[in-house]
Amino acid sequence: MTETMAGRSNGTQAAPLVVGFGEALIRLCPAGFAPLEHAGHLDVEVGGSELNTLVALSQLGCRTRWVSRLPDNALGRRVAGHARRYGVDVELIWEADGRIGLYFVEQGVAPRHTQVLYDRGDSSASHLTPGQFDWGRLLEGAGALHCSGITCALGASAADAVVEAVETAAAAGVAVSFDLNYRSRLWTPEAAAAAFRRVLPFVDVCFASPYDLRLLADGSEVSPGRVLATYDLAALVVRRQVEAEPGRLHIEVAVTAGGRSAVGKAEATVLDAFGAGDVAAAGFLSEYLVDAPLEEAATAAARASAHMYTIPGDTWVRPQGPGTEGLSHRIVR
Amino acid sequence: MTETMAGRSNGTQAAPLVVGFGEALIRLCPAGFAPLEHAGHLDVEVGGSELNTLVALSQLGCRTRWVSRLPDNALGRRVAGHARRYGVDVELIWEADGRIGLYFVEQGVAPRHTQVLYDRGDSSASHLTPGQFDWGRLLEGAGALHCSGITCALGASAADAVVEAVETAAAAGVAVSFDLNYRSRLWTPEAAAAAFRRVLPFVDVCFASPYDLRLLADGSEVSPGRVLATYDLAALVVRRQVEAEPGRLHIEVAVTAGGRSAVGKAEATVLDAFGAGDVAAAGFLSEYLVDAPLEEAATAAARASAHMYTIPGDTWVRPQGPGTEGLSHRIVR
Amino acid sequence: MTETMAGRSNGTQAAPLVVGFGEALIRLCPAGFAPLEHAGHLDVEVGGSELNTLVALSQLGCRTRWVSRLPDNALGRRVAGHARRYGVDVELIWEADGRIGLYFVEQGVAPRHTQVLYDRGDSSASHLTPGQFDWGRLLEGAGALHCSGITCALGASAADAVVEAVETAAAAGVAVSFDLNYRSRLWTPEAAAAAFRRVLPFVDVCFASPYDLRLLADGSEVSPGRVLATYDLAALVVRRQVEAEPGRLHIEVAVTAGGRSAVGKAEATVLDAFGAGDVAAAGFLSEYLVDAPLEEAATAAARASAHMYTIPGDTWVRPQGPGTEGLSHRIVR
Amino acid sequence: MTETMAGRSNGTQAAPLVVGFGEALIRLCPAGFAPLEHAGHLDVEVGGSELNTLVALSQLGCRTRWVSRLPDNALGRRVAGHARRYGVDVELIWEADGRIGLYFVEQGVAPRHTQVLYDRGDSSASHLTPGQFDWGRLLEGAGALHCSGITCALGASAADAVVEAVETAAAAGVAVSFDLNYRSRLWTPEAAAAAFRRVLPFVDVCFASPYDLRLLADGSEVSPGRVLATYDLAALVVRRQVEAEPGRLHIEVAVTAGGRSAVGKAEATVLDAFGAGDVAAAGFLSEYLVDAPLEEAATAAARASAHMYTIPGDTWVRPQGPGTEGLSHRIVR
Amino acid sequence: MTETMAGRSNGTQAAPLVVGFGEALIRLCPAGFAPLEHAGHLDVEVGGSELNTLVALSQLGCRTRWVSRLPDNALGRRVAGHARRYGVDVELIWEADGRIGLYFVEQGVAPRHTQVLYDRGDSSASHLTPGQFDWGRLLEGAGALHCSGITCALGASAADAVVEAVETAAAAGVAVSFDLNYRSRLWTPEAAAAAFRRVLPFVDVCFASPYDLRLLADGSEVSPGRVLATYDLAALVVRRQVEAEPGRLHIEVAVTAGGRSAVGKAEATVLDAFGAGDVAAAGFLSEYLVDAPLEEAATAAARASAHMYTIPGDTWVRPQGPGTEGLSHRIVR
Amino acid sequence: MTETMAGRSNGTQAAPLVVGFGEALIRLCPAGFAPLEHAGHLDVEVGGSELNTLVALSQLGCRTRWVSRLPDNALGRRVAGHARRYGVDVELIWEADGRIGLYFVEQGVAPRHTQVLYDRGDSSASHLTPGQFDWGRLLEGAGALHCSGITCALGASAADAVVEAVETAAAAGVAVSFDLNYRSRLWTPEAAAAAFRRVLPFVDVCFASPYDLRLLADGSEVSPGRVLATYDLAALVVRRQVEAEPGRLHIEVAVTAGGRSAVGKAEATVLDAFGAGDVAAAGFLSEYLVDAPLEEAATAAARASAHMYTIPGDTWVRPQGPGTEGLSHRIVR
Repeated sequence: MTETMAGRSNGTQAAPLVVGFGEALIRLCPAGFAPLEHAGHLDVEVGGSELNTLVALSQLGCRTRWVSRLPDNALGRRVAGHARRYGVDVELIWEADGRIGLYFVEQGVAPRHTQVLYDRGDSSASHLTPGQFDWGRLLEGAGALHCSGITCALGASAADAVVEAVETAAAAGVAVSFDLNYRSRLWTPEAAAAAFRRVLPFVDVCFASPYDLRLLADGSEVSPGRVLATYDLAALVVRRQVEAEPGRLHIEVAVTAGGRSAVGKAEATVLDAFGAGDVAAAGFLSEYLVDAPLEEAATAAARASAHMYTIPGDTWVRPQGPGTEGLSHRIVR
Repeated sequence: MTETMAGRSNGTQAAPLVVGFGEALIRLCPAGFAPLEHAGHLDVEVGGSELNTLVALSQLGCRTRWVSRLPDNALGRRVAGHARRYGVDVELIWEADGRIGLYFVEQGVAPRHTQVLYDRGDSSASHLTPGQFDWGRLLEGAGALHCSGITCALGASAADAVVEAVETAAAAGVAVSFDLNYRSRLWTPEAAAAAFRRVLPFVDVCFASPYDLRLLADGSEVSPGRVLATYDLAALVVRRQVEAEPGRLHIEVAVTAGGRSAVGKAEATVLDAFGAGDVAAAGFLSEYLVDAPLEEAATAAARASAHMYTIPGDTWVRPQGPGTEGLSHRIVR
Repeated sequence: MTETMAGRSNGTQAAPLVVGFGEALIRLCPAGFAPLEHAGHLDVEVGGSELNTLVALSQLGCRTRWVSRLPDNALGRRVAGHARRYGVDVELIWEADGRIGLYFVEQGVAPRHTQVLYDRGDSSASHLTPGQFDWGRLLEGAGALHCSGITCALGASAADAVVEAVETAAAAGVAVSFDLNYRSRLWTPEAAAAAFRRVLPFVDVCFASPYDLRLLADGSEVSPGRVLATYDLAALVVRRQVEAEPGRLHIEVAVTAGGRSAVGKAEATVLDAFGAGDVAAAGFLSEYLVDAPLEEAATAAARASAHMYTIPGDTWVRPQGPGTEGLSHRIVR
Repeated sequence: MTETMAGRSNGTQAAPLVVGFGEALIRLCPAGFAPLEHAGHLDVEVGGSELNTLVALSQLGCRTRWVSRLPDNALGRRVAGHARRYGVDVELIWEADGRIGLYFVEQGVAPRHTQVLYDRGDSSASHLTPGQFDWGRLLEGAGALHCSGITCALGASAADAVVEAVETAAAAGVAVSFDLNYRSRLWTPEAAAAAFRRVLPFVDVCFASPYDLRLLADGSEVSPGRVLATYDLAALVVRRQVEAEPGRLHIEVAVTAGGRSAVGKAEATVLDAFGAGDVAAAGFLSEYLVDAPLEEAATAAARASAHMYTIPGDTWVRPQGPGTEGLSHRIVR
Repeated sequence: MTETMAGRSNGTQAAPLVVGFGEALIRLCPAGFAPLEHAGHLDVEVGGSELNTLVALSQLGCRTRWVSRLPDNALGRRVAGHARRYGVDVELIWEADGRIGLYFVEQGVAPRHTQVLYDRGDSSASHLTPGQFDWGRLLEGAGALHCSGITCALGASAADAVVEAVETAAAAGVAVSFDLNYRSRLWTPEAAAAAFRRVLPFVDVCFASPYDLRLLADGSEVSPGRVLATYDLAALVVRRQVEAEPGRLHIEVAVTAGGRSAVGKAEATVLDAFGAGDVAAAGFLSEYLVDAPLEEAATAAARASAHMYTIPGDTWVRPQGPGTEGLSHRIVR
Repeated sequence: MTETMAGRSNGTQAAPLVVGFGEALIRLCPAGFAPLEHAGHLDVEVGGSELNTLVALSQLGCRTRWVSRLPDNALGRRVAGHARRYGVDVELIWEADGRIGLYFVEQGVAPRHTQVLYDRGDSSASHLTPGQFDWGRLLEGAGALHCSGITCALGASAADAVVEAVETAAAAGVAVSFDLNYRSRLWTPEAAAAAFRRVLPFVDVCFASPYDLRLLADGSEVSPGRVLATYDLAALVVRRQVEAEPGRLHIEVAVTAGGRSAVGKAEATVLDAFGAGDVAAAGFLSEYLVDAPLEEAATAAARASAHMYTIPGDTWVRPQGPGTEGLSHRIVR
């Protein structure tokens, strides 16, 4: 089996190319549930919603490309190297004297909450602004552009940059995938809803949590059908998880598309919750972009997400063994 | 918000001062459940019942002072530094050529029992004896003196030193808090009961496990009311925990005081059981000493204790996030 | 209590000697469930079915001897030192320029499967062949010879070496203990069944999983009595485990011997599943070889195995505390 | 030997109180000289010029107080706890939603340079501004106020805050100690020189490197006497180090005061260069403030600094053994 | 500054493409000089002569491509990811059920020798054979093909594969770079010399140690000029190092090309000697391929190599700070 | 090459048996030169003068046996396992509720002294007393009994036990080897000299430092010849080391025996100084006991000792590579 230079393919049909746009950060986390206040050392990982999705997509057989802005220092190079390691092509602006965003994670078990201390203000990625990238070239041959609401939350110019990207993609006939990903620490629900409404007219596939959905409807419950209709979406993917008992989750991914619905389910033991939503998006897109049946896409999303809960850090690694066929049949390495 | 030099206060009313008296030890524990017999390295922590309580009280907004005896070497200084780090004032006798007590912990999961190998014989703290401290000065302005039965078990002179301290406190109108804390490895039930009966006449707030209670009653069941009456206690705090399933505890703290009763409940996943009782005492005292309702005190004890089960080591760190308001509303840092 | 030079005994009766024959490997495993694909470092352990059994037997009061072949390098010496550390005498052929077998373990939690990557081809132990050992001398005074199906799977000459050993033992009146231990990565069911049928005529005590049993019966269910009769076994020990919930096992060891049956049961939280079967064999043999009641032997097997699930690595460490008496009453150190 | 509650004293004469004002940061450093670009984890330490000096002074027998501004989160609390651990009283402003300054250290050996990646922009300490502290109260009873040029470099308002502090100290007759500590990454030589000239009129004891001295003289060589006269200093302490061979330093501390000069010398193997200048200041002040002979002060500075080069992290620990008497004769713990 | 998708360029002129062909292995090494015989865990790195050279070249501004054969498992994917991380394009054959070569390193200081325990027999890369790669396509646009004698030592078919590659390159006008890299553990001097004589007729740039040179001359000293003439080389690069004192090296790189000679020199403290020769080749090629003066190429080789001695592992990281300009002026990230 | 059950031999002549008698301790040491006062974890090793010597002798081809007393707990078992791991037979008294001696090591580099904090009071080994062992049986077939002055320093009864052992050996014609090993922390020079004078009349081979020698002569210089004559020694081995520069030692072992003298020399880089003297004794004995030339014995002592300075911990591992032949030609594994 040969991996070509151009990237990755495993047959006659070219693997779809997904282009992601957004920030990646350095994650620092004490081992063994130690409190951040007195841990002796911190494990270093790389994370970021869109990049997490691309890393998983790359392992699920897609070609991937990440577009972002990084500081020109050892930590920035670390992030770029992380993307490349998993076969993600990079298109980066290197900012002299910039800084990488950071987040400190303190893992807990019930009743101790996992804590996240973000330190991402004024990061190089927050300086993203329209006009920095040649989107026409970057999207050439792409099957999808994937963005998330987090980038919109980094500031007005970053939000404008997202709009520029999705507009260009939509105009070029490239499918736009958007994960609402509302984060209460970054902005208010009102600001988020306003930003999302600028982006959604260009979106084809929308990922949302139940909370994200209510936010679009100004706090009231809303049916998937209505959201689809309102924004002319091709597909709406809603991910729920319920904690059956401490440390065990039931995951459910409900997809509505083309007048049909499908639900994928999986269970997971929670070792590390980070990245689970990002990988659900990857699982879904890896099937959706090759026109797999809706049920398979929903199941792939749920299973990939369940698997992510069992992996320390934000980086998905493709599963092996019984019950993982749905996730590995189109995988190259 | 300003932290004053004098210590800690966050309002017009002065925070209560709790003075603790007892031994602290160095805890050595392999990471990752490895057997002590072949672990390659040991994590170093500081622990000790009264100091654990003070460290938690300090984070719960009280002023605290620890009175003890330490060897004048790097490990003794480490213990003193640990106390200070959490804002605990220290009054210490430094013993030349003394030794610090040690305990080796080997964590287990069912059916493997967590093992503790104590090596605390002839420690500097076991040389505590009456007349070593100016208790009048040390208790000035204090809301409570907190001791435990462990110190009484260190030897006859240490037990005498406890009696001296509680007598002085009682005479000065300082509330005496006492955690029976019977340890079968240190002495016999009979010896413990005899020692406790010397101390209890001076005690205002008594912490006990169900086993401790029976010990006071020579092995038979005994009602809280009768214990309160026998020793003229102001409050009796009994802490029970039941293992619902391996690794999950139901915690119940029953308080009887002033003819009334209250029960606080919480649940916990067990990562590390050490210090859970000490922190329950802190939770209770932090509310009791500011005349909070009994229910709040019982709940604070249960919640603080539950949280302690989720923290590696013996050192409580104040919780954050939903459901922890009860423990943090009066916290300064 | 004195440990004699000759090895270990704690009474007037000599402890039984068990001689084991087979391969040991170096195990390399990332800490904290990290994926092998990007873990920064690997914990080093020693493992191997027969040696695991001997290490447990040694701690359960038996005299033990391990016969094998190792490369003459630091890793080979490490394995030999591991055996000696636990009081196992060694009879080793040192192979110049040989290699030690390796296996890489990636621990998972549901739904992530624990992965094992074997790298044991062409190991020094796979060069075992008849005529290399003076079995007459090695088995002198032995109570049992313990082998497993894994050695038969290492190659034709290693299988012949097993046959040589069991033949010699049987001829000398030494009980032969054999753990079928079918491993699908090493050979086909057909090849295994053929090899087992060469060994079983000499076997007295046979350990099997339900799958192993079916394999002997060409895939159909088979009663213990029929297996006993077919191969003239003195005892058949079948070990089952059922996962009640993720991470919790019910273990059941069913023994059939001398027309009687007994079942031992235990429960375990799974930290590390390796060696659990090997230690069940040790628990059984430690009782069986001193003519303990069948029920005690079955229970010792189940309890020792349950305990092994809670220990990182492949090396059993004798349990302590309530409920472990069955495993420690004849233990020396 | 008793340590009093008030802090530390070792005799009839009260130990001098040194008040320090400035920023402390979290230091993150890979172990074992690993490159930051791919290190798996980072050791966590606390560092900051003025706090480093205070921590050493505290161990050298002085009373100490640290005045600063920290974010109200786990990392801010960690820094405060670090100061307290070493017996440093703290007067802190807790900034909600602030951030702690960070620096990443990558240790090198020749010819690989040790790299420092600062990430301290917009830290809580950079928001220091005049009027935030009651300097009259904080300096009461103090022997010295210690500041450094680094605080002036944090921004205009922080520089104003330094001027406010030194003015108040000078007016109250408290000796002002100032470490020029020019850092080329924080500002230009011109900006530094201008800021220093605002502070120096209030300074009594000035610490400088040869480069710092030239900076005061606009790049030309300048004699200590002239600097003393220009700024009416009571003492000028210049620290030089020369690398005799890779990893070995000759340290020379030249003191000029009251028309006299003295030189202290020491040698050091370099394990970690951080904090060496800060500790030299502590060594000097610990002797100078108790009116020790100039030679002893110079020697204490050189020896304390030499010792700091052998300690990982920024935190001095008092030396023990032959040749360290000069540093420990007045030490309490 | 923008990094293009195609790879890396920083100006109008395209960066040269270097294609490397050879094996990479997993390196396992105890931390802190611990003996392999009892180290508790091993650090995991990736190493391999040609890949080490490519990783350095990539950081020195060249485009790079690695051609090899890997097992289709987590360790094989780790190696591929390592190459990609540093911007090296990969052309890989994935071997089902293959194995990755390993080497265990035990670091020593004088008089303890650093030990290397190779376990690379029957690795996937040793199965390289002619006809497996489309060299015409892979070398398109390349400035150089880089191979080493190690690949020739893996077996007859691997040696044939090297000959195939260099023949194709030579025919296509691509410069052939060859590092003799004699390894006494892999083959005899006679076998090596015979293999080298098959390759050298196609070589343009030859890297050698003094020992390698003598080996070409059947054990006698030989002048660079004679070697150049014998094999019609364009450049001969000989690297020597002398240990001035334990742990300190003088490095000298002597280049002879086009009738001229140049020598580059550097000094290094030795932390980890692995990869130093590979990186010298990278330093030289990075200058030679852009027609830099011979002196600059020799100096770059010496400096890059010196820097490599200070980095744990086999992976060069570009230096920063004073004195490293020669290595970083054409670097992109 | 076969290792026999009886232990170790590699030829027709039986390897000499050395019996050692003395205490072993657990050593706890922070990694990376961190101060004990704030290190996060401690590496665990086993050390003890006589056991260190036996472990090295075992690797140098001798049969070895260790006689001691240990607590019956996980740490005692660890020590016993350590001895066995290196092929040392053990004869142990297991003390219920005893404690293992501990020492905490804080490694330094100049001018920071390596610190050792002993915590060995009341250890199980300090309870050694005459009559506990059947020395006649234990010394059967032995070539030598090896003791050290440290055991004499553990207390009067331990000193008596040493006298009992050496008397029995002398009477049985077993050579007595004694390492004076004066430790100033354990006793006074006077007490040591008195104890040594009780033992030396039975000693054949005496190991001493220059300081030890002076101690025997009441502080004055003394010639080896005179010491030999005074105590009727067969051989006197004096070990000196001089620090040429920080971290580099010149080692010199001067042997006087049978009217002849020889000196062995070696150089070492110091990573960890512990055990260097113990291993020198092993190097000497391994040659002396097989009647090797005096020069070889002196050289083996110096080389083995030099090598020990390069190994973390107290456990010698046999060297490999050029220049180590003198130490490995009779080694079995």
